[in-house]
Formats: sequence, C-alpha cells, structure tokens
Amino acid sequence: MMASPTLRAARAVALPLLCLAALAASTPSPAQAPAARADPLPSWNEGAPKKAILDFVKRVTTPGSPDFIPAEERIATFDNDGTLWPEQPIIQGAFVLWQLQKRVAKDPSLEKKPAVKAALDGDLESLTRAGEKAVMELFAITSANLTDEQFDQEVREFFQTAKHPKLGVPYTQLAYKPMVELLEYLRANGFRTYISSGGGIDFMRAVSQQMYGIPPEQVIGSSLKKEFKDQGGRSVLWRKPEPGAVNDKETKPVNIDLHIGRRPVLAAGNERSGGDIAMLEYSQGREGPSLQLLINHDDGQREFSYQEKDNASLNAARAHGWTVVSIQKDWKTVFP
Amino acid sequence: MMASPTLRAARAVALPLLCLAALAASTPSPAQAPAARADPLPSWNEGAPKKAILDFVKRVTTPGSPDFIPAEERIATFDNDGTLWPEQPIIQGAFVLWQLQKRVAKDPSLEKKPAVKAALDGDLESLTRAGEKAVMELFAITSANLTDEQFDQEVREFFQTAKHPKLGVPYTQLAYKPMVELLEYLRANGFRTYISSGGGIDFMRAVSQQMYGIPPEQVIGSSLKKEFKDQGGRSVLWRKPEPGAVNDKETKPVNIDLHIGRRPVLAAGNERSGGDIAMLEYSQGREGPSLQLLINHDDGQREFSYQEKDNASLNAARAHGWTVVSIQKDWKTVFP
Repeated sequence: MMASPTLRAARAVALPLLCLAALAASTPSPAQAPAARADPLPSWNEGAPKKAILDFVKRVTTPGSPDFIPAEERIATFDNDGTLWPEQPIIQGAFVLWQLQKRVAKDPSLEKKPAVKAALDGDLESLTRAGEKAVMELFAITSANLTDEQFDQEVREFFQTAKHPKLGVPYTQLAYKPMVELLEYLRANGFRTYISSGGGIDFMRAVSQQMYGIPPEQVIGSSLKKEFKDQGGRSVLWRKPEPGAVNDKETKPVNIDLHIGRRPVLAAGNERSGGDIAMLEYSQGREGPSLQLLINHDDGQREFSYQEKDNASLNAARAHGWTVVSIQKDWKTVFP
Repeated sequence: MMASPTLRAARAVALPLLCLAALAASTPSPAQAPAARADPLPSWNEGAPKKAILDFVKRVTTPGSPDFIPAEERIATFDNDGTLWPEQPIIQGAFVLWQLQKRVAKDPSLEKKPAVKAALDGDLESLTRAGEKAVMELFAITSANLTDEQFDQEVREFFQTAKHPKLGVPYTQLAYKPMVELLEYLRANGFRTYISSGGGIDFMRAVSQQMYGIPPEQVIGSSLKKEFKDQGGRSVLWRKPEPGAVNDKETKPVNIDLHIGRRPVLAAGNERSGGDIAMLEYSQGREGPSLQLLINHDDGQREFSYQEKDNASLNAARAHGWTVVSIQKDWKTVFP
C-alpha cells in the first residue's frame, strides 16, 4: 500500500495492458420495453438492492422522518471504472495506447524506446521488466508536456473516434443504464452526485457531464502536477511529467474530504481490487444514515465477469452490511 | 517562491504574530439608511467598480448577448483574508494563539518549549530564530494529531467565543458587507461562488456557509496531510503534522483547476503580498469575457490601511486592466 507514487503510476499504466490481455467476450442485452413511469429505476429488477435504494432515498428526504438529511448534506460519491462504465479494458488504458499510436505515427523514432514498443505490442512482461523509468517515460509522452487545453482537446478527439474493441460502440455510449437512472433519481431528490475514481481527473472531466450529468467540479480523480506559466502572453497550466495524487483505496476518503469537506451519505463502488473499500467505510462512518453499494461483476453474458482472488470487497460488504448489486440478477438492462 | 513546504508553513504561522504587532486602530462606520430595493449592491458607492460589476453580470447573463456565458460556466473565486473579511490580524493566527493558550492551560509544561513561549509572548524574533523545527512543533501542537471532527469542534468553539482585538465583535460578524452583497448578487444570477484562499481549508469551512453562503465543497484552501484510519471501530481522517498544499500565489490556479476544472469567469483578491496575482491572471486567460477585482486597503479610518512595498498587485492590475476597488472611495459601508 505504501508504494511510491511512481510505482503506483506504473501499475496504473500496466493494468490496462493486463486487462486488454484478459478481455472476455460479451453481448449487450436487447433493449427493454419502457417501464411504468412511476418507477425511477426501470432498468433495475425488483429485488433487495432496488428496494434498499428507494427506501433509503425516501427516508432521508421526507421532512419529519427520523432519518431526514438536509439537502445540503446529500452528497453521493461514485467510483467510475466498473461502477459507472465498464473496465474491460480500462478505457483510459485504451486512450493511452491511442495517444501512443498517434505520436509514433508522427514520430516513428519513438518506437525505438523499449517502453513504447512494449506498450504498442501489448507486451506487459517487457514493460514490467523495463521498470519504473519506462513507465514514467510513457506517462511523460502521453499525459504530460502539454497544456491542459491541448490535453482536453486530445481526450475529446479520442471519445469522438474510438470504439470499444468487444462491444463495438463509442465509449460514450457505455454508461451503465441502471447507474445513470440512479444518478438522475438522486439528483431529482436533492443529492449532489460526485465521481471519486482512480482514473485521470482531466480524462473523466471531458465526458462526465455528457455521460452522467456530473460536471467537472464534481469529479475527483488521479492527477499529475501542473505548473502555472505564461505562454505567449496567456496564462496556462502546464502538465508536468510528475504524478500527483493516485486517487485509490485509502486516498479516496482523503480526496473526498479535500474536495467536498463532507462524508458522502451514499457511496457506490465495485469489486476488482479493493479500491473502494475505504470510500465506503468513510461514508458509513458519518453521523446518521448512509447507504453503501458494491457492484459485483458476475455477468459474463451481458457484461464482464471477474472476481477478486481474496474477495476483499465482498467480504467487507458482508462484514459492514453494504448492499451488493449483482449485475446478473439486479440489472434488467446493462447498456442503453 | 520555491521555499520548502515547512518554510512556507513557518511563514504562515509567523505572519499572524507580525500582524498582531502591527495592528492599526479603526472604527466601524455608522449604519446606513437602506438603499433603493432595485440596487443589488447598496453598500457600494456609485463609481467605476460598481458599474463594471453590474455591467459585466448583465452582459454575461443576458441571453443573446455576444458576451453570454452559460450558467454552468459561471464560476467566481474569491480570496478570503483581506477580500471577504479583514486580515489585521490574520484571524487564523488569532485562532492558533487561542489554541496554544488552551493547551498550555491544560498542560503548563508545554510552555517550556521555546517555540510555544515565543508564540505566546508574541515574540516573533525568537520564533524566527528558533527556526523551522519550532514552527513545525507549533503546527503539530495546534493543527495536527487530531481527527477532523475534533478540529472542527475546536474551530467552532473559537468562533463562538473569540472577539476581534480592535473591533471588539465576534469574527463571524466581520464579513465585508459589500462583498457579501456581491456574492449574493452573483448567486442570484446563476454564479457558483468559491473561496480560494491561503487560509486553512478546514478552518474556513466551519464558517463559510454561515458568513458568506459558501458551502464546504466550494472552499479551496491550504491543507495538511491526512490519514484514513480506524478509531474504535469507526473510520476517521487523522490530521498529520505534515503540510499539504499551501494555496497561495501560483498554487491558486493549480488548486482551482484541481477542485473546479474550470477557469473562473470572475476572480477577486486583494493587495498585501501579491498572493492573488496568479489567480486573477488565470481567470483572465479564459476564452471569453471575465472580470478581475482587486481590493485595495486604503481606509485606515473604517478598516485598515496597508500597501505592498513594491506595489506588485496594483501594478499587475494596471498592466492587465483589472478593476481596483478602493475601500475608502467605493464602499459606503464596510462592516454590517
């Protein structure tokens, strides 16, 4: 857990390649008939998780209820990869590869660098052997040495052109429909919805409003160090090849506190690597009612099926009484 | 500018003592008759700054105007010390001394520490001679080694009991009335108002809603490192005696980007130490209209009069075309 920032950045780059290698097949489910208008969560099957959500929102928003929470405290935080959209592959990993391919096309000499070649070949073993220095090199080539505006333009271009390798559609069409309904339902009930993800903050900010209705100021993510400087008479933020915070595990509560200054009354994450356990614990530690959701990826037919070797997240959910959402059982529809 | 974090933390503690020594006398102005209801800024005298503000808000909020800014982009960021409330003394400095006195009363042996004695005596020279180690000791004794909840309770207790040494009223009554009117006017026109200050983020968050209508999630400030841990079965954030970000000068735009992800369309700061120049430049560098305000402390009668030796902030305002607000000329009322 106390790995150096560069090691953690290394894992953040290596993992997408691992996921690319481990990609499972899936087919999206057919479109469903529209549900009754009164149901705010039509893509959720009737079951314990749906009931728990509806009951919680009713209890905390009904004036006079013993569980009433004033609107200004209704903060909900959501992980992104595996909670709001799929992570097979981790979409930002696909973005990094896309950036590399573009840069190599412009400057073929880049491919001489072992790290670049390994990444383009999907050769995780060589990349790991090349070590931290190699990963930092990739990081510098793709994420850094740009202004924020240049990086944002590149992210938008990626989302306009790239498609999911298995599902065959632009990534912007892959928000989990049940979770989008949940976000909209919460906001209709006075909640402010945030993302707290290990993904890059600027990467997510380019599409979070469009896909989830979550504006940039409500996105918390991993960052790199930036420098305020003058460029041709205009002030810019320059992205430096130095990792800032990696917003995962125990860092999530710290960054939620930094950005929001309140404990979330609702927190949602998923199992894959125990990355959301601390955020859900932090939410549950608030004075007063709260709800924690853990998405379990058990549907290899419509989405992707994967489990933790040690089941840490599911064990924590059981021990703490969190609501586990089975994609297979609880989601009538997965993708729009 | 490239001082170590501990040096900067040292300055952050030393400066309040300097201000206490340099405190000037002032008397609040008498209450004014209520202005015409149509005027959203009744505490502002008619003049160029008031006109610039009203004109700007009208231009950017009128549909069809060439300067129209969509509501979601209407971000306004305000410095706190010297922009929203007075900084003679820096109120957080008074808080640190109050905390020290409380701790010494509980444990008189603390006063044996030279740094503690120097701080309690207002002896800035000894404190400076004692160096970084001494300042870090003060920092650890007052701000750290507490949970967030414990620190927040202490801040609230301070604000309930302490009074300004010259003005004789609780600090919570010292928001600048013209600036509170400006905040309310902006919000009535779809702006989201933020604080970006060098002050401690958790210190300000305890009163920002009550004094300015600015909720915790819209406060950006200096921070210390925190650790997520379990305390008796409940998850807490533990405040560590290690400075995080000092949110001043060129760090302000970086943190505004981290927290908000948008350039402010309106930014307000003040002259004292050039701390807001970068924030105002960052605002002005946006694509499209923007407004920058610089408060000039030139009213020794009703507030406090102080100037920079090199006039860096006023010079930047002149060079960049920012709107300079003269407390003496432009504010009909200073305090409520």
